[in-house]
Amino acid sequence: MPNTNYLQIADDEASTTISQSVATEGVGFVDGKIVPIAEARIPILDRGFIHSDATYDVVHVWENHFFRLDDHLDRFMNGIDRLHMSIDYTREDIKKILARCVVASGLKSAYVEMICTRGVPDGNSRDPRRCTNAFYAFVVPFSWVATPEEQKKGVRLHISKVERISPQSVDPTIKNYHWLDLVRGQYDAFDADADLAVLTDRHGNIVEGAGFNVFTVKGDTVATPGTGVLKGITRKTAIELCAQLGLAVQERDVPTADVLSADEVFLTTTAGGIIPVRYVNDRKIGNGGSTTSLRLRDLYWEAHRDPRLSVPVSV
Amino acid sequence: MPNTNYLQIADDEASTTISQSVATEGVGFVDGKIVPIAEARIPILDRGFIHSDATYDVVHVWENHFFRLDDHLDRFMNGIDRLHMSIDYTREDIKKILARCVVASGLKSAYVEMICTRGVPDGNSRDPRRCTNAFYAFVVPFSWVATPEEQKKGVRLHISKVERISPQSVDPTIKNYHWLDLVRGQYDAFDADADLAVLTDRHGNIVEGAGFNVFTVKGDTVATPGTGVLKGITRKTAIELCAQLGLAVQERDVPTADVLSADEVFLTTTAGGIIPVRYVNDRKIGNGGSTTSLRLRDLYWEAHRDPRLSVPVSV
Repeated sequence: MPNTNYLQIADDEASTTISQSVATEGVGFVDGKIVPIAEARIPILDRGFIHSDATYDVVHVWENHFFRLDDHLDRFMNGIDRLHMSIDYTREDIKKILARCVVASGLKSAYVEMICTRGVPDGNSRDPRRCTNAFYAFVVPFSWVATPEEQKKGVRLHISKVERISPQSVDPTIKNYHWLDLVRGQYDAFDADADLAVLTDRHGNIVEGAGFNVFTVKGDTVATPGTGVLKGITRKTAIELCAQLGLAVQERDVPTADVLSADEVFLTTTAGGIIPVRYVNDRKIGNGGSTTSLRLRDLYWEAHRDPRLSVPVSV
Repeated sequence: MPNTNYLQIADDEASTTISQSVATEGVGFVDGKIVPIAEARIPILDRGFIHSDATYDVVHVWENHFFRLDDHLDRFMNGIDRLHMSIDYTREDIKKILARCVVASGLKSAYVEMICTRGVPDGNSRDPRRCTNAFYAFVVPFSWVATPEEQKKGVRLHISKVERISPQSVDPTIKNYHWLDLVRGQYDAFDADADLAVLTDRHGNIVEGAGFNVFTVKGDTVATPGTGVLKGITRKTAIELCAQLGLAVQERDVPTADVLSADEVFLTTTAGGIIPVRYVNDRKIGNGGSTTSLRLRDLYWEAHRDPRLSVPVSV
């Protein structure tokens, strides 16, 4: 099937899900039960809320298939372990729960979030070891960091002066909810009339944005920050696809100047896949074309037909 | 009344509330209603949870009086504003809500938390401007960073190598739930057989711990970190009390070495007041006495009888 068809599917699916999306669409999994999303609530005393003491992961479902579910589960289970948490559900239990939630939601394409929190403490204790860790999940319509319509218009990226929370403080490879820096960057982007913000580290290298990794293309070489970022599953997919195209991939520090002088810039995210960026800080990137990015985007959606990566949702 | 009486009150009250404390004690304020704490839940999709996009404050009630409520409200309202959030309740409304919650809880001494979150987004949007910000509150029994019993045994502080999240990333003067670095430090402290951790900044100066500020005493001079920390209300009270005692107070960078060579070290927190530290990194501080810290602790509890600071809970 030609690549444009995949994109067409993406665009149609997007408009369908976005027009339907209201807070009542989707389901949550709380206290071992599947409930409508509008009724899915967590205890106000859960340390996952009042200390953001939690890890999570998001896998997407596209046309009734989970994409790279095992990769997401690897990262999620690892995060739980490294935060000194544990849950009663096994990896296989979680797979079943997520599949049941997707089926219950009735959604063909969806954003599927699994969450492990420190939980509610025993009595009045402030000791995290005295909490019963909790597992939650929810399924909502597929969501886009930049919608296909926004991509057509040309995504505008703002390089924010806000520093991404340092790995010396919070390990970014344990997916977490510490987003106040990202939100601050996002408001900077709005002020600069841009769509999205990428934050920098203390040395002025770019790192990541709100739910996405960033890549530059210069000639036959693709670069993406190697440290200080979440190792995104879409990032991993993009790196694999670059290899297929014979491009060299460098995971390294990426100074702001490299972004501004790149031929192309693209974002990778579970919430939308591979997203070409046309403007950075009001500057048109390269010649404004996105040949490599668009080729990667096509390959990304094609990969959704690969049974090694896409697994049918079944209960 | 002699100072020891105040401490006695503190100790008695603590043992009473702690023995009573179970997850069922207290109340929450959610969706405009007061409910038992065990039923107080927030929507799983609230960005306050899934992006920790929130600010909060904690005021304590001691013997049916709010302590420095106006100071806490000043900080809370400022945080809401600086995060580009707004709520329908006025400052006076919030005072009434909190008082009603305390009365409903039946607690004489309590930990009273007010929260403003980004809220649930409109449909499937990722734009924080399209959220309806939410206000929540809860009242639970008074809680201690270190209980009076632990204080008698001698509180052990661990200087963690984990960096506190930088002000370049998240403004610490907007009280927030980004605690994963503090939790990481806490587990380091447990490994080091200590009770509590204080984190450092990127230059090796101490900054703050999980819900508390840190002070050193050296001769007639008291020092506490001037930047990179929450400007605690108990910190403010301690600074005022030091002035009363004729001590010089320096708000400045406090290198780790200054903590280890101090005559005394104490913590300040709404969750327990002024708490003397006896050991830092396995080293006994000063001569092990805490004359100044204990004097400040007495004055702190005495201040709870000052009508300029303590306001009766009334609805």
